[in-house]
Amino acid sequence: MIYHLLEYYLGPHGHYGYENPLFRGVIALLLAFFIVWLLGERVIRFLIQKRLGDVPDFDHKALNELTQHKTNIPTMGGVLILFSIAMSVFLLANLKVFYIVLAFFCMAWLAALGSIDDWIKLTSKGREGTRDGLKFYQKLLFQFALGVILAYFIYKRGEQTFAETDILTYRILTLPFFKGEQAYGILLSLPLYFVITVLVVAGTSNAVNLTDGMDGLASGCTALCCMVFMLLAYAVGDEGLANYLLFPHIPEAGELSVLCGAMMGACLGFLWYNCHPAQVFMGDTGSLPLGGLIGFVAIVIRQELLLLIVGGVFVMEAVSVMLQVGAFKLTGKRIFRVAPIHHHFNLGGWTETQVVTRFWLLAALFAALALATTKLR
Amino acid sequence: MIYHLLEYYLGPHGHYGYENPLFRGVIALLLAFFIVWLLGERVIRFLIQKRLGDVPDFDHKALNELTQHKTNIPTMGGVLILFSIAMSVFLLANLKVFYIVLAFFCMAWLAALGSIDDWIKLTSKGREGTRDGLKFYQKLLFQFALGVILAYFIYKRGEQTFAETDILTYRILTLPFFKGEQAYGILLSLPLYFVITVLVVAGTSNAVNLTDGMDGLASGCTALCCMVFMLLAYAVGDEGLANYLLFPHIPEAGELSVLCGAMMGACLGFLWYNCHPAQVFMGDTGSLPLGGLIGFVAIVIRQELLLLIVGGVFVMEAVSVMLQVGAFKLTGKRIFRVAPIHHHFNLGGWTETQVVTRFWLLAALFAALALATTKLR
Repeated sequence: MIYHLLEYYLGPHGHYGYENPLFRGVIALLLAFFIVWLLGERVIRFLIQKRLGDVPDFDHKALNELTQHKTNIPTMGGVLILFSIAMSVFLLANLKVFYIVLAFFCMAWLAALGSIDDWIKLTSKGREGTRDGLKFYQKLLFQFALGVILAYFIYKRGEQTFAETDILTYRILTLPFFKGEQAYGILLSLPLYFVITVLVVAGTSNAVNLTDGMDGLASGCTALCCMVFMLLAYAVGDEGLANYLLFPHIPEAGELSVLCGAMMGACLGFLWYNCHPAQVFMGDTGSLPLGGLIGFVAIVIRQELLLLIVGGVFVMEAVSVMLQVGAFKLTGKRIFRVAPIHHHFNLGGWTETQVVTRFWLLAALFAALALATTKLR
Repeated sequence: MIYHLLEYYLGPHGHYGYENPLFRGVIALLLAFFIVWLLGERVIRFLIQKRLGDVPDFDHKALNELTQHKTNIPTMGGVLILFSIAMSVFLLANLKVFYIVLAFFCMAWLAALGSIDDWIKLTSKGREGTRDGLKFYQKLLFQFALGVILAYFIYKRGEQTFAETDILTYRILTLPFFKGEQAYGILLSLPLYFVITVLVVAGTSNAVNLTDGMDGLASGCTALCCMVFMLLAYAVGDEGLANYLLFPHIPEAGELSVLCGAMMGACLGFLWYNCHPAQVFMGDTGSLPLGGLIGFVAIVIRQELLLLIVGGVFVMEAVSVMLQVGAFKLTGKRIFRVAPIHHHFNLGGWTETQVVTRFWLLAALFAALALATTKLR
């Protein structure tokens, strides 16, 4: 909004600071933080009034004891994060850019899914006192559907870009550490592109969801992840920089750094209230859209493989669950004390604050590593 | 070291990744982290063996109770940070650059001062059970002396640069938000340059020292501060980027981004053991050199004023002490429950982890704000 007002007022191509999406990304970061920070107290009071308290419930006795003190902390704080991101992007991004429209769609879809899930968990009293949300396959179905829709529209937009740039960027899979014939990766076949896109959207969404199990863990790691993508989106959207770093240049993708900045700011603002001892949790309402948006950005800027490094903590968490479930089904034995892996360390003797801070440090290292790879070819 | 080996092996001006100081800065970050991480356990065991345990002792009863559990946690962990920084810079930086040599000198000077201070604190048993280190004016004397020496050598190096570039960059004070005749700031008179340099070195050194009063507070804030200076040093050292951002271009200053990367990595690695509940403290051995180096970098790249934003948390801490002491001397009343300000919030009801995480968030916001100002002129 402000972007368009400035554009109207100052005229196009004026070489003003506001035209730089990275600059607007940083401003979005600050704005999103303050929106969450200002509204935080009020929203938490409202959630407590509505009795939207969490009831941690694990299939593990020691873990239930460790998380006892978290009963009745309000959840669904994700609404605050989403409101803040939406406002900041609305105000600061160029809304004519198609990827921004798609981002809003992705966010709304997963916000709906997440809040329905949270709502069912909070209102239903399942058997034996447990509270179940949507079944896993139900969530997955909606995530797959979203993945297909996003894949289609990103592909379509890519074809239009192709007409302009004559490069099939929209089907390229950028390979870290690799310098191929196209200088930056391999060309995917159409079906493979769809499969990868769907897996990335569903995967990130669920991985962030799994990570969201300790005070500040998901919000902190997401913030670091968004910082890297803010930089990468800008680099990919800038022709000179993209060529310098041997990235595929995706016109208009730079605008996504405004989205990433807003996501980072909202997560940091949320961390103010979410840090140990947490006053509010984001719930699926927050974690599903945050994850999905990270996946979405990675797909648009063709960095699905780098995402595995940038989001290394999320990958660890998701893989630990898969290994645990797989090993248990195959051999009847458990690899970790309990999955996701953050609880494994917690039961092993690290305090919750140690697990969270150390996972943040890992996330920071993964971020640094990911940025370093951009020069290693 | 590795830099020089690669330079010898690949030849100069080969357009290789290693020639980019920002890239080496990120590698230094990763390396410094792993050095601290690998040696951490061993060093902590050694410090415990030598009985270098901390005895928190405040002039405030409630605060003494709040910090009771910290008795006997080993201090002087700063040696680990300094070793890691020295190793990483030695391996990855271009050691022919004069500013790197000066950085080693600055680090050694303040490390000596800090460790003497820690040592006296640990071994002397003052009256009434308190343990006093060096007197404040004694520390200040050594810091002022260092400031004068650094000011002289940076000035001398600046004169040599002047011969090359014909711009008096070494006496320019860069003003944020400002576009002056020289495009980036005002020209300082020689005495004023000396005064500012001495104040910055002593100020940052003491401010970081004051901040170092809670688990992970100083290490986390320093890491964020170093991240910004890693980027700024690179920008200032790169002629094109410096001109684009209207910064004074300081040849060879880019090499300091390797130092900043190493400092950031070492602080993050230290945070692994220093996060709540801390297993080790850095002590003055760590905080004085870390602060001094931040000040040193700010002076070399002529960003003394931006330092006030980047290190906003340190400024808050130092100012809170000055206000408290000043107000008490003038009016006999106290402004804060207790200074430095992190204890004020702690006594006000925030838990230690909340104070620390929220101060980190403030540091992150200050970092973002500082980076945003680089485009706001």
